[in-house]
Amino acid sequence: MRLILSALLIIALSMETRAADLFNERDLEIARELRELAMSRDGGFDVVEDLTTRIGPRLAGTEDDARAVAWAVDLLNDLGFDRVWKEPVTFPTWSRNFERVRVTSPVEQRMEALAIGYSPATPEGGIEAEVVMLDDLDALIAAEPEDVEGRIVFIRNRMERSRDGSSYGPAVQARARGAIVAAEKGAVGVIIRSIGTSTNRFAHTGGMRFDLGQRRLPAAAISNPDADQLERLVGLGEPVRLQMEIDAQKTEAYTSHNVIAEITGAKYPEKIVALGAHLDSWDVGTGALDDGAGIAIITEAGRLILDLEQRPDRSIHLIFFAAEEIGLWGGRAWAEKHHENFENLQLGAESDFGAGPVYEIGARVVDEAWPVIKAIQRELEPLGIALGRRQASGGPDFLPSLPHGLAVVDLRQDGTTYFDYHHTENDTLDKIDPDDLAQNAAAYAVLAWLAAQSPIDFGSGPALLEQERASAD
Amino acid sequence: MRLILSALLIIALSMETRAADLFNERDLEIARELRELAMSRDGGFDVVEDLTTRIGPRLAGTEDDARAVAWAVDLLNDLGFDRVWKEPVTFPTWSRNFERVRVTSPVEQRMEALAIGYSPATPEGGIEAEVVMLDDLDALIAAEPEDVEGRIVFIRNRMERSRDGSSYGPAVQARARGAIVAAEKGAVGVIIRSIGTSTNRFAHTGGMRFDLGQRRLPAAAISNPDADQLERLVGLGEPVRLQMEIDAQKTEAYTSHNVIAEITGAKYPEKIVALGAHLDSWDVGTGALDDGAGIAIITEAGRLILDLEQRPDRSIHLIFFAAEEIGLWGGRAWAEKHHENFENLQLGAESDFGAGPVYEIGARVVDEAWPVIKAIQRELEPLGIALGRRQASGGPDFLPSLPHGLAVVDLRQDGTTYFDYHHTENDTLDKIDPDDLAQNAAAYAVLAWLAAQSPIDFGSGPALLEQERASAD
Repeated sequence: MRLILSALLIIALSMETRAADLFNERDLEIARELRELAMSRDGGFDVVEDLTTRIGPRLAGTEDDARAVAWAVDLLNDLGFDRVWKEPVTFPTWSRNFERVRVTSPVEQRMEALAIGYSPATPEGGIEAEVVMLDDLDALIAAEPEDVEGRIVFIRNRMERSRDGSSYGPAVQARARGAIVAAEKGAVGVIIRSIGTSTNRFAHTGGMRFDLGQRRLPAAAISNPDADQLERLVGLGEPVRLQMEIDAQKTEAYTSHNVIAEITGAKYPEKIVALGAHLDSWDVGTGALDDGAGIAIITEAGRLILDLEQRPDRSIHLIFFAAEEIGLWGGRAWAEKHHENFENLQLGAESDFGAGPVYEIGARVVDEAWPVIKAIQRELEPLGIALGRRQASGGPDFLPSLPHGLAVVDLRQDGTTYFDYHHTENDTLDKIDPDDLAQNAAAYAVLAWLAAQSPIDFGSGPALLEQERASAD
Repeated sequence: MRLILSALLIIALSMETRAADLFNERDLEIARELRELAMSRDGGFDVVEDLTTRIGPRLAGTEDDARAVAWAVDLLNDLGFDRVWKEPVTFPTWSRNFERVRVTSPVEQRMEALAIGYSPATPEGGIEAEVVMLDDLDALIAAEPEDVEGRIVFIRNRMERSRDGSSYGPAVQARARGAIVAAEKGAVGVIIRSIGTSTNRFAHTGGMRFDLGQRRLPAAAISNPDADQLERLVGLGEPVRLQMEIDAQKTEAYTSHNVIAEITGAKYPEKIVALGAHLDSWDVGTGALDDGAGIAIITEAGRLILDLEQRPDRSIHLIFFAAEEIGLWGGRAWAEKHHENFENLQLGAESDFGAGPVYEIGARVVDEAWPVIKAIQRELEPLGIALGRRQASGGPDFLPSLPHGLAVVDLRQDGTTYFDYHHTENDTLDKIDPDDLAQNAAAYAVLAWLAAQSPIDFGSGPALLEQERASAD
C-alpha cells in the first residue's frame, strides 16, 4: 500500500514538474512581474471612472451607445495598441420611456418597477386587472387558463444569494419566458419579483427571450420590498388589482460596433488570445459593475502587456462587445464573422461578472492543453485563485462561439453581492473596489501573457469539437 | 488613601441601595415580568406590518394621512385602551407631483432626485442653469453673490455615519436653509447631496425650514452616487449645466389629528406618562422605520401594560403625533394645548429613530428625580441599556414642549444604519428586525410602568424650569 502511494506521489510530482517546464523561465518571470505590477495599481479604475462619468448609461442602439463606441476607439488608440478597429453589429433595439405600476385595490400604492427589455408598450393609460399570484414559472406553465385569463400574472419566485451566481439561471426563467407563457394562457400583463438579491428598493431590469414570432405581454419587474408588499396585500384575502403602464419602443435594425484592439504577436501574429468585456449597459445605472468593470479589467491587462519591452508570441485582442444586454448581439456577430478562423483562436475569456475578486480558474481546452492551464493556475495561486472544473463558458459573449469549438477560460469571480446591483439604477462607480479590480487585472494579464506564450495551442475549432464528441461517445 | 476609597465605596453602595428602595418590590417584579414578556414577543411587528401594508406612505395632509388616523383610532379601540380620542392639528400642506433633475452639459445624464419638502414648483418646463459647486452651507453664506447669481447652487457636504445620529444636525443645515440663503444671493435653484449615509442610489427627502415670509428657491436632494457623479463632472473642468423641474403644491391649512390612547391611572388618573411616536411619514417609502417602528414600539408597550391585572398608579398615554415630518405640527399642537397642565405630566418620551436597539437612557428631570431614573436604568440594564447623560430632548415631537419645562426621557437607539433609509423610498418593512423591536418595546414598557409607579414626580413645568434657571446662574 505504501509502495503504491509512493509511486502515485512520484507520478504526481513528475506531472507537476512537467507542467512547470512548459513555459520558459523568462516568460514565467514576466508573468510574475505583470502580476506584481498589476497588484500595485488600481486595476483600470480610471478607465471605468471615465466611461461611467463621460458616457454614463449606454443602452445598445441609443446615442449613448454611439458615444461609448467613439470613446472606446479614442481610448484604445490613445493607449497605443498596434491596431484598433470596429466590426459592425446589427440588431433590433428596444428602449423605455417610462413604466408605472400601481396597486389600485384594496389600497392605492405605487410599486417600484422597471419594464423588462423587449416588453411591448401597454395601450395609453395602461391596463388594469386583478392579480393572480404564482410561485414560479413552472406554476404558470401548470396553471389552468381560466385562472389566468384576463389577469395580471405576478410571479413571486425569489433569487437566492450565491458566490458563483448559479442561482441566477433558475430564477431568471420567470423574466425570460413569463411574458410569453402568460400570453398563451390569455393573461393581460406580467409582473415578476426582480431577479436580484438585495432588499433595497430597486427593480432589476433585464431582457426577456427575444423571439419575433411569439406574442409577448407587457412585463415589468418590481423590487424585492415591493414584491413582499404585494404578497402581503394578496395575503389580506381581498382581490388585489394592479394598474400597469409601459411606454417603450422598438426598431427593426440598428448598427453598432464591436471595438477590437490588438497587440500584434511577434512570432504568430495570426494566432489570437481574445479577452472580452461588453461596452453596452442597461439604461438605468451607469453600468459600472455591468460591465464597466470588465472593460477596465481587460484594458488594464492589455496596457500592462503593451508596456512590456517585448511583444508576446501570439497576438492579444481586447474585444469590447456591443449589445450584450439585449441579446448577445455583439457575441453573435463576432462568432459569425470569426468562427471559420477558430483554429487560430488560442482562447476566449470575457470579464462580465462585476468587480469581485477571482477565486477560481476553469477551462474548456483539448486534453493536451489542460497541463498548460494547470501551469497558468500556479502563477495565479498567489492571487488566491484555485484550479476549478475542467469546463468553462468563457462568459456571455463567447456563448455563441461555443458550438464552433472555441477554447475558453473562466476566471470565476466572487459574485456574492453582484446581483444586489445587476441591472439596477444602483449599478454605479462607488460599488467598485479598486483593490479587487487590480486582482482581476492581474489575473487577466497573467492569463493573456502565458496563453500567448504557451508552447501549444488550446485546440479551438474542429480539434476541440472532435475530442468532445469522442469523449461523449 | 485606602480609607478614603472605602468610604467612597460605602457611600456609593448606600446610594445604590437607596435608589433601589425607591420602588416597592411588587412594582419591580412587574417591571421584570413586562421586560421578559416583551422580549419573548415581536415588539409590535404586527402593528407596523399592518400600518405599512394597509396604509403605506402617509404624508401629512393627504388622503393617506386621513386613512392612517382612522386606522389608528380603530386599532387603539380594538386593543381596549380605557379612552381613545383625537385632537386637531392644523398646518399648511405640501405635496409632490414629480421632480426631474438632469445634467444637460457636458453630457446628458439623469440624476436620482427628490424635491425637498416645501420646495416651490419650478415654472413648467423647468429651469436650466450652470452649476456652482460649494462645500457646505457656510461656503454658500460666504459666497459672493456674483459667483452664485443666475446659477443652480450644488451643496456637496456629506453626512457621516454615527451611532447617536449626532452627525445629522450639522449636515442637515444645507437642506434646512440652503434654498433660503441661495435665494438671497440671486441663485435660481438648489441641489444638495442627500442627507443620508448610504451609497445606495436613493435620494433623501426632508423638510426645509418653514418660513412663510421668506423667499425660497426650488430645491432637490440627489443621491450620494449622483452627488459623486456631479462632483466628477464638475471636476472635468468644463461648465456643467443642470435642468431641474419640480411640480409640487401647497395648501394654506389642513386639519389632521393627534390620536391619543389612555390607560387610566388607578391612584392619580390626572397624572400622565406620555409615550409618543408619529403616525405620518414621508411620501416615498412606507414609513416603516420612520416612524412605523415607533408606533409599533409604544403600542406594544401599551398593550403589555394594559394586559396586567392592575392599572398603573398614574395614567399612561400613547400619543400618535400628526404631521411631524413637515414641521412638528402635531408636537406643536400638543404643547400648545397641554403645557398649562405640565405639572401633571410625569414625562414625555418619543420613539422616533427607527428600530435599532436602545443602548442608553438619558433624562431631563428635577434633581430629586434623578435617583428614580437611575433605579429605572437598573431594570433596563439586562436589555443592554446603560445610564447616559443627564440631559434629554424627549424626541422631535416633544421639542416644542421643552420651553414649557416638560420632563423628558430619551431611550437612545443605535442609529448607525438609520440614515441609510431615513426619508427614502427604501424605508420599508423588511428593514425592521423584530428582535430589535422587542428590545425597544421592553424598554418602553419598563420605563412607562416604573415612571407611573414612581414615588415622586419628575418635576415637569415651572419646578423644572426654575431649577434649570438656578443652576444656570
